[in-house]
Amino acid sequence: MIKVVLIGSGNVAQHLIQVLLQAKEVDLVQAFARNPSHLSYLLPATKITADYQKITEADLYIISVSDNAITEVSAQLPFENRLVVHTSGSSDISVLNDKNRKGVFYPLQTFTKGKEIDFAPIPICLEAEKESDYQILEKLGNCISQKVVHISSEQRKSLHVAAVFVCNFVNHLYQIGNEICKENNVPFEVLHPLIQETAHKIMELSPKEAQTGPALRNDTKTIEKHLDFLENPEYKNLYQLLTQSIQHVKKL
Amino acid sequence: MIKVVLIGSGNVAQHLIQVLLQAKEVDLVQAFARNPSHLSYLLPATKITADYQKITEADLYIISVSDNAITEVSAQLPFENRLVVHTSGSSDISVLNDKNRKGVFYPLQTFTKGKEIDFAPIPICLEAEKESDYQILEKLGNCISQKVVHISSEQRKSLHVAAVFVCNFVNHLYQIGNEICKENNVPFEVLHPLIQETAHKIMELSPKEAQTGPALRNDTKTIEKHLDFLENPEYKNLYQLLTQSIQHVKKL
Repeated sequence: MIKVVLIGSGNVAQHLIQVLLQAKEVDLVQAFARNPSHLSYLLPATKITADYQKITEADLYIISVSDNAITEVSAQLPFENRLVVHTSGSSDISVLNDKNRKGVFYPLQTFTKGKEIDFAPIPICLEAEKESDYQILEKLGNCISQKVVHISSEQRKSLHVAAVFVCNFVNHLYQIGNEICKENNVPFEVLHPLIQETAHKIMELSPKEAQTGPALRNDTKTIEKHLDFLENPEYKNLYQLLTQSIQHVKKL
Repeated sequence: MIKVVLIGSGNVAQHLIQVLLQAKEVDLVQAFARNPSHLSYLLPATKITADYQKITEADLYIISVSDNAITEVSAQLPFENRLVVHTSGSSDISVLNDKNRKGVFYPLQTFTKGKEIDFAPIPICLEAEKESDYQILEKLGNCISQKVVHISSEQRKSLHVAAVFVCNFVNHLYQIGNEICKENNVPFEVLHPLIQETAHKIMELSPKEAQTGPALRNDTKTIEKHLDFLENPEYKNLYQLLTQSIQHVKKL
């Protein structure tokens, strides 16, 4: 059994607690939360503490707090030379305090409060300074996911930027599509199959091969019609910039 | 049986021919193609013509050619008062020549050459001037899809703009994510589960509820790190514009 203490009570922390409670070979011995009430629906009060001095012994301490707080939280830990990891895609391993052994345990997924997540297909991106620590993280990763990968801090930096494009920004384009539909009395659901197929396609084809549409065809007539149609100057601007960018990639 | 003549030999035309050949209650009597060799892998030579004068009688003529060619092709048809439809998301019903009865049969999906498509979940967006013609289109639509919807030319115009955002532009963001990964020796496949989950999420949540990421959190530290990281000025520009746009939607 791997003994784990989880530090944090936000969105990712809650999802992690849920999956760690279900995992065989994992003993979630305690969770630390400044506000224990956030976790009371998941854990008995005896397993939650708000006092750094009362954090118990474990093989692994997972800090799952907002990026800006990792350094401070890791400095507050009242022990030394134990394995302490963070779960942040955008933070270097070095943001963790030097007094403990460092690592990263980054589940690459978008977590929405209240929407349960199947961890099995989620890549867990691992990093550790010591090989023996990496093995502990790998063992834990394999308990909850089918896909465990080694990603260095340098790689993770680029992966996080890429993730913002393919997840956060993609979702915003869904939002724009939704708005356009709403304003014109078209049910957004009509677009659901197109959205799913667009996402499935790039599992078989590279995004460059999968590209279609007026920008790629250089169909200036349609592009002008669409620009005329768009009233929101920000969306017009985005339409132009994305069209240009598609045409630049085509030329490569 | 609905007798259909299909006019065109491009990407969408080929997918339509394939599904119409499989459909019960549909008799694909002929296809017209300027270059019959494009269709010879699908149909026997006797069923393909390149001569407008040899187009046979049918209940329905489906023009599936590039948007710019619809008007001319519909004018070339050597008959009158028959039901002629186009399959274009971006064209008004009125681009069809007046001598025949008009309609639209628009399958709302992204078609990639060589990638077979299941039509069952694809919404078929219909329009016709006469109720009896609409019924023919509805019958045909139901033969190949589970989702047939009435969409006016006005609605279709907005739907097509929305589709460019949620499909063509989304795919371009996948392309950018792919490039960033490649340049930094990260396998793009690590992002596949995130991409799928982002697409699945909006079947249950509205895109506004599903939004996550540094822009939404107004996490300026991460945003600046990402902008520093991006070297391509076009991608930097897109990052900024999309970030602003997410923050504007948040305030609504």
